[in-house]
Amino acid sequence: MRISELSERSGIAVATIKYYLREGLLPAGERTGPNQASYGEEHLRRLRLIRALIEVGGLPVATVGDVLAAVDTPDLSMFSLLGVVQHSMTTPVPAAPDDEWERASATVHAELARRGWNPKPSRPAIDTLTAVLVRLAQLGYRDWGTTALPSYFDGARVIAATDVEAALTAGSREEIVDAVVVLTVLGDTALSAIRRMAQAQITLEGLEADNTTRTDN
Amino acid sequence: MRISELSERSGIAVATIKYYLREGLLPAGERTGPNQASYGEEHLRRLRLIRALIEVGGLPVATVGDVLAAVDTPDLSMFSLLGVVQHSMTTPVPAAPDDEWERASATVHAELARRGWNPKPSRPAIDTLTAVLVRLAQLGYRDWGTTALPSYFDGARVIAATDVEAALTAGSREEIVDAVVVLTVLGDTALSAIRRMAQAQITLEGLEADNTTRTDN
Repeated sequence: MRISELSERSGIAVATIKYYLREGLLPAGERTGPNQASYGEEHLRRLRLIRALIEVGGLPVATVGDVLAAVDTPDLSMFSLLGVVQHSMTTPVPAAPDDEWERASATVHAELARRGWNPKPSRPAIDTLTAVLVRLAQLGYRDWGTTALPSYFDGARVIAATDVEAALTAGSREEIVDAVVVLTVLGDTALSAIRRMAQAQITLEGLEADNTTRTDN
Repeated sequence: MRISELSERSGIAVATIKYYLREGLLPAGERTGPNQASYGEEHLRRLRLIRALIEVGGLPVATVGDVLAAVDTPDLSMFSLLGVVQHSMTTPVPAAPDDEWERASATVHAELARRGWNPKPSRPAIDTLTAVLVRLAQLGYRDWGTTALPSYFDGARVIAATDVEAALTAGSREEIVDAVVVLTVLGDTALSAIRRMAQAQITLEGLEADNTTRTDN
């Protein structure tokens, strides 16, 4: 198909497709004339993935290039590929190595060690969690890392197992990467909403238990 | 104490404190002269809560007023108070009642019904989750609502039980509201980071299982 049809079928403007071509994100089409090239279904699939990475994942173009390079390295195992994608999607938080930071970092690493989780592939996420613990301590919630954190790990593990399974069964390498990005990012919003529903439900159950007790007395 | 000391001890600028006084968020101090008033520890506590609602919770000033009114209504049960706070913290998503929206909404309500959860107090969160399901369907993940959603509810329930318990044991009504806001908002960031750690760990376990199988052959 010509670039105009590629644009129509993907819903992406011709100028944007040309930009992706210049940046090397989209491979060149097959040259059919001095100013013409022909594109195939593989270009449509690639465009769909680029869109997911940029629009849903919020990845900068340079990082998109790194992820696509990993997709296109068949020697790279599926699990290593997932590692590249997961890593690319976590915005690193600058570490502030004062006493409060060290204390929070020790709490996170103790929880990981207790579960036998390898901290290595999770460096950016560990720093984000450490920053949250520092902020909680500043706001007067220093105990949270020992009282609530384990439940968060328990709940997250249940959810993440579903995430990884959903991604691995998505199909080709490109489709798997698409699934990881889309399900991780939109999953955050879904989880935040469901957590609020669960809080409301548990609160309501408490209210009903409360009323029952009051009627009993 | 005078307003200057209140500012110093709370870390909030005098102009900001005067703004909160004008908006009725902070009760007036005891008048000690034509241009002077005296403030007590209760003003410090209230300032701390206003900050949590505005800076951590991201609530607009009008909503902060509603939450504080609920805090100051002793007849309102603790559980109803929690309901007001939870409701104030969920940004409503505009419903787009087309076929895709109806389908997604039915999926969410079926999951709630299956668990016996009351949908009433969760209206804004339900709309947010529905919007996520619509977006996922548009991106080609129409099955997610049946395959992955139940795990999200399972995991979220484990975490929310800890959230509600942590909030209810925080102390006074003001401290409980402070805890709900801080732990809900920072908990979202923590959960997102921990979910990525769990994804990485499960991926790594898969990689190791993969290598073992490969060595065995």
